Amino acid sequence: MAVLVVGSIALDSLETPFGKRDDVPGGSATFFSTAASFFAPVQLVGVVGEDFPQAHVEFLQGRGVDLAGLTRAPGKTFRWKGRYGFDLNEAHTLDTQLNVFGEFRPELPPAFRNPDLLFLGNIHPELQGLVLDQVEKRPRLVGMDTMNFWISGSRKALLETLARVDMLFINDAEARQLAGEHNVFKAARAILSMGPSRLVIKRGEYGALLFDREHVFAAPAYPLEDVFDPTGAGDSFAGGFMGYLARKGDLTPNTLRQACVAGTTIASFCVEKFSLDRFRELTDAEIRQRLASFKTLTHFDEIPPAV
Amino acid sequence: MAVLVVGSIALDSLETPFGKRDDVPGGSATFFSTAASFFAPVQLVGVVGEDFPQAHVEFLQGRGVDLAGLTRAPGKTFRWKGRYGFDLNEAHTLDTQLNVFGEFRPELPPAFRNPDLLFLGNIHPELQGLVLDQVEKRPRLVGMDTMNFWISGSRKALLETLARVDMLFINDAEARQLAGEHNVFKAARAILSMGPSRLVIKRGEYGALLFDREHVFAAPAYPLEDVFDPTGAGDSFAGGFMGYLARKGDLTPNTLRQACVAGTTIASFCVEKFSLDRFRELTDAEIRQRLASFKTLTHFDEIPPAV
Repeated sequence: MAVLVVGSIALDSLETPFGKRDDVPGGSATFFSTAASFFAPVQLVGVVGEDFPQAHVEFLQGRGVDLAGLTRAPGKTFRWKGRYGFDLNEAHTLDTQLNVFGEFRPELPPAFRNPDLLFLGNIHPELQGLVLDQVEKRPRLVGMDTMNFWISGSRKALLETLARVDMLFINDAEARQLAGEHNVFKAARAILSMGPSRLVIKRGEYGALLFDREHVFAAPAYPLEDVFDPTGAGDSFAGGFMGYLARKGDLTPNTLRQACVAGTTIASFCVEKFSLDRFRELTDAEIRQRLASFKTLTHFDEIPPAV
Repeated sequence: MAVLVVGSIALDSLETPFGKRDDVPGGSATFFSTAASFFAPVQLVGVVGEDFPQAHVEFLQGRGVDLAGLTRAPGKTFRWKGRYGFDLNEAHTLDTQLNVFGEFRPELPPAFRNPDLLFLGNIHPELQGLVLDQVEKRPRLVGMDTMNFWISGSRKALLETLARVDMLFINDAEARQLAGEHNVFKAARAILSMGPSRLVIKRGEYGALLFDREHVFAAPAYPLEDVFDPTGAGDSFAGGFMGYLARKGDLTPNTLRQACVAGTTIASFCVEKFSLDRFRELTDAEIRQRLASFKTLTHFDEIPPAV
């Protein structure tokens, strides 16, 4: 199976307590596609400006990402500027310049219109809907991301798109906001009644929760002593998750749980260096090792009923 | 095996978004002993004032807690008044009246001086040390709790006591404060270099991390849709944890992991009603059922190296 992602491609300028970087590659489609590429073939739809360095395009090509849906438009690339304090769970946006991304109307090339798995990155929910309109055959799974901005500002469009997808990836504050429920498990139940049959609630350093209508699976975050830059962790999680599904080729509850672990694992590499830097050097052996250590992190022998 | 706990016994007045209670039983020794009593025999050392209702004493007796170390002193019982907002992870202390607890000098009755397992509840670290002085034979495991107040105000005494115990139970903000490290895994490593060979970092609704010098075990919190009163959750966790160790009768790494799950499970009941109310009606069958569902919550099939 392959995964199609539609989302943003950005140049990020970041400040964390550990350093500063200007105009490094970012955006949901960038992180997602790179992360997913460690497990499966990926197709990307997105837009960059005239100033987007060819080296970043070549990096994605080098990861095997099919860029037939990448448009280079007149103007400048989407730019995001953000800062993190020691609490790396929260980004403070300093500046956003949409540039060519402001006019983005995703168009799937003919070869991309029958994806096995589709991920709608965090863009306007109407554009996410526009992507769904172009798909010729129902994908086996459609995942989507969204954010506080659309939850408060474009709620109607968001709910319409949400009703058309299978799975939502969202962070815990956004889940609470979307559901209007403080308790995360009540919020999850409310969201699952809005359409998707599956939900991942991302909780940063606390891991992720995977819900279907009957079960919850809790995956801790991988224990990291050094987190440099949390940018892209959520998209890398989703990329690892859906890339793993594509690799396994099935959507059983057990595979979804493994995908959650795979997503967490890939995200844990993402945050170890700035931007895509950790992915540039990441090996399959490192991924395998970290995946294996997840079992040690959570395993306990079942407590016998007699106790 | 049996567990000995030394700690506070209080009358709490609480406000949460879900209600208000005045002068309900609280305190570290109260929650710990009740929680541990679901798994093993418990001995308690603590002090109450003349106003402490006999009904609360009888409740503990009814749970089989050995109260030979309970003193009734002239004066009023320790009182704590607190409020929680919707973020139930954080308590806002409104008032503390130490009363007879201010003069508390723990004294172990002769029959309590050879405990298998000892828990030093959150009291002045010098008093915790005083308890250790009275123990005739090294217990198989000594656990302790502490809080921000002692970490900042009595650091030297705290470090001295910490060097004498086997295991610290602490919440994540306190772990960061004690270690002077923002990253929780670095903080854990620093704390394990201060003496204890094991450490639990409690993270409220995000669960708990159990460390020894080589491994981490991550236990999620039990998924609860209704949390009424988080007071006592930490002490109930420790009580469930050490009670389980006493019941199993060994301290293997696997038993410690199971104890972490048992502690999380017992704490999850504690917060479902005010004060000890959920424990008043809790059955072994309910505990067994929730323990069993923990496996479902965290289990995934190991990802084969070929993937």
